[in-house]
Amino acid sequence: MIGAEIEHLIKLLARLPGYGPRSARRAALSLLKNRESLMQPLSQALAIAADVIVECPLCHNLDTVSPCSVCANPARDLGQICVVEDISDLWAVEKTGAYKGYYHVLGGTLSALDGVTPDDLSIPHLVSRAAAPAVHEVIVALSATIDGQTTAHYLSESLRMADVTVTQLAHGVPIGGQIDYMDDGTLSTALKSRKAV
Amino acid sequence: MIGAEIEHLIKLLARLPGYGPRSARRAALSLLKNRESLMQPLSQALAIAADVIVECPLCHNLDTVSPCSVCANPARDLGQICVVEDISDLWAVEKTGAYKGYYHVLGGTLSALDGVTPDDLSIPHLVSRAAAPAVHEVIVALSATIDGQTTAHYLSESLRMADVTVTQLAHGVPIGGQIDYMDDGTLSTALKSRKAV
Repeated sequence: MIGAEIEHLIKLLARLPGYGPRSARRAALSLLKNRESLMQPLSQALAIAADVIVECPLCHNLDTVSPCSVCANPARDLGQICVVEDISDLWAVEKTGAYKGYYHVLGGTLSALDGVTPDDLSIPHLVSRAAAPAVHEVIVALSATIDGQTTAHYLSESLRMADVTVTQLAHGVPIGGQIDYMDDGTLSTALKSRKAV
Repeated sequence: MIGAEIEHLIKLLARLPGYGPRSARRAALSLLKNRESLMQPLSQALAIAADVIVECPLCHNLDTVSPCSVCANPARDLGQICVVEDISDLWAVEKTGAYKGYYHVLGGTLSALDGVTPDDLSIPHLVSRAAAPAVHEVIVALSATIDGQTTAHYLSESLRMADVTVTQLAHGVPIGGQIDYMDDGTLSTALKSRKAV
């Protein structure tokens, strides 16, 4: 017989990505055991973040300020917009430190199976942003999946009228990747896109 | 550039069991996307649980009432105490519905490697509880590991003076287990403890 409060907590924890009923029980117990060092801080961090985080009206990123700290940074390159599927992808690109332009979060990819149409994504907004005179390149950083590539193709069509170059991430063998573990698609793409050493 | 509030949240989430920096980022994003349905309820559930949960002075279980709802239940069998390592084990035994006695949470197992001595566990408390006239059986439900079995052996020695039978969980092939996947130790124990059909 577990207390109703713990049961409720376990049920909520089980809805976190990667958690199920069993791991949520484990997490609840670990939280209860680290009440002061983890449980109370986490509760406060959740409440604060839920309270102050807003969606950026420009790039659809999430931040405590609006527009977000990337869009509000005047030191960044006005000429580039990097299109990503989700905020986690924005975080991943940002973490590399290799990109200094602005972003645009689509909120998903086109998908015939899941019934995601261009109207469900922030594509019209991207087209109007790309029409700004300062923008000269739109970098499509979408996953190398069927849906990602379909969306990339649709984007390049949509941006035909805007005076921008549409580029996409290079495909090839990942750094540290072993040739004999690569799939045929990756290897043949890497072969076709080979570069002079 | 991720907001400081989100960074802080990710750092706390990364300390949950089974989470690392990457999965914590995913969890933070999923929380931010389900602000009303998951993030705020979870924050409240954590705060409430951290506030009301207390350790039972009798069995060391965690509950909202003290003594815990198991110890406070007069319908349970006074004659049996089930010794478990941790509260998660208590929850696991309780979920089976097969046990109607009381519990005693040790808070760990003896371990020469980790330097856990009998004084670190609630063994003296167990011995005094087992000395009560009503108690006739102590069921040792510890893991079938070296440390678990060492602790079980130590417990049976410690309880020699109390007028109780010390039993432990049966070892053998788990329900649904396939013979050819069992390790030698399990199979030989199951053979030695074979029963008439």
